[in-house]
Amino acid sequence: MTIRSEVKKRTVEMLAHAGLLLTEEEQEKIEIADMGLGHLEVEGLQLFTYINTDRYCAKELVLFPRQTCPEHLHPPVNGEPGKQETFRCRWGTVYLYVEGEATPTIQGIPPAGKEDVYTARHEIILRPGEQFTIDPGTKHWFQASDEGAIVSEFSSTSRDEYDVFTDPLVRRLEGIDL
Amino acid sequence: MTIRSEVKKRTVEMLAHAGLLLTEEEQEKIEIADMGLGHLEVEGLQLFTYINTDRYCAKELVLFPRQTCPEHLHPPVNGEPGKQETFRCRWGTVYLYVEGEATPTIQGIPPAGKEDVYTARHEIILRPGEQFTIDPGTKHWFQASDEGAIVSEFSSTSRDEYDVFTDPLVRRLEGIDL
Repeated sequence: MTIRSEVKKRTVEMLAHAGLLLTEEEQEKIEIADMGLGHLEVEGLQLFTYINTDRYCAKELVLFPRQTCPEHLHPPVNGEPGKQETFRCRWGTVYLYVEGEATPTIQGIPPAGKEDVYTARHEIILRPGEQFTIDPGTKHWFQASDEGAIVSEFSSTSRDEYDVFTDPLVRRLEGIDL
Repeated sequence: MTIRSEVKKRTVEMLAHAGLLLTEEEQEKIEIADMGLGHLEVEGLQLFTYINTDRYCAKELVLFPRQTCPEHLHPPVNGEPGKQETFRCRWGTVYLYVEGEATPTIQGIPPAGKEDVYTARHEIILRPGEQFTIDPGTKHWFQASDEGAIVSEFSSTSRDEYDVFTDPLVRRLEGIDL
């Protein structure tokens, strides 16, 4: 099996376990984002976009155990405010960090050697049925607990190519396509 | 038990069966919309709104067996195009009807005596993992199959008070609150 087919299979299985079904055609469109960093299991995530119109977007985010989405923010685009997004945990636990007052002891662990590009330290822990809305322009990163996590994302239009990452090495649109 | 607590319990159980968990606080906010028609099991639906900002909205729609959401459309509001919405079936089967070429034989059954206020006859059948996006200003109605249905709705901002129903007897914001 290719890496893509293995990761896709694992993603589909996690979603199905949480009662979230994708058609075969949809499964082919799962995005495996390693963001050009080359260590998907550490930094990256798996996504499926249900719909992304010029008005709204809905996605499912799948994170393997301790997999981390690098810190970023959504800037204004074409005179429109940056993306506003609501994360709702469906399965597992997700540790979400946003700009703001630092939580004294956090559960998430920034990837080794990358502490300086994971600056947000205000912790929000989301378990199934819990949600949080991230305002536009707010730096954030998130990590799954030891069991992994599935997060539904409801948002304004998604324009990933404009996302601003703290880590200059990130190439948001790079992933595993084959 | 009051009617509200019975309907709420049934709604929460259907959602949980599909893996969709609501916190206790959220359960209290379930909307039971009989729309002033007084026969909830025939015309009406149960809704939970995860989030509704000035940019996007996400809801869960729960329909009991053969329960029907009356025909309506979402008009432009304050110079903004009407609500655009994506229905994704999570559980059961939903028969969705939109304006357009009539399907010769449809699976949905307009409520008896109400055929004239259920005019859309273009059928889209949605099973778990299937979705359809309804453009603004398009008349639509939907009915659950004999087993009921759960539908995730992703959309632009929801402004239910402006919805235009074909049946003049409908009062969209009326429901069972006690």
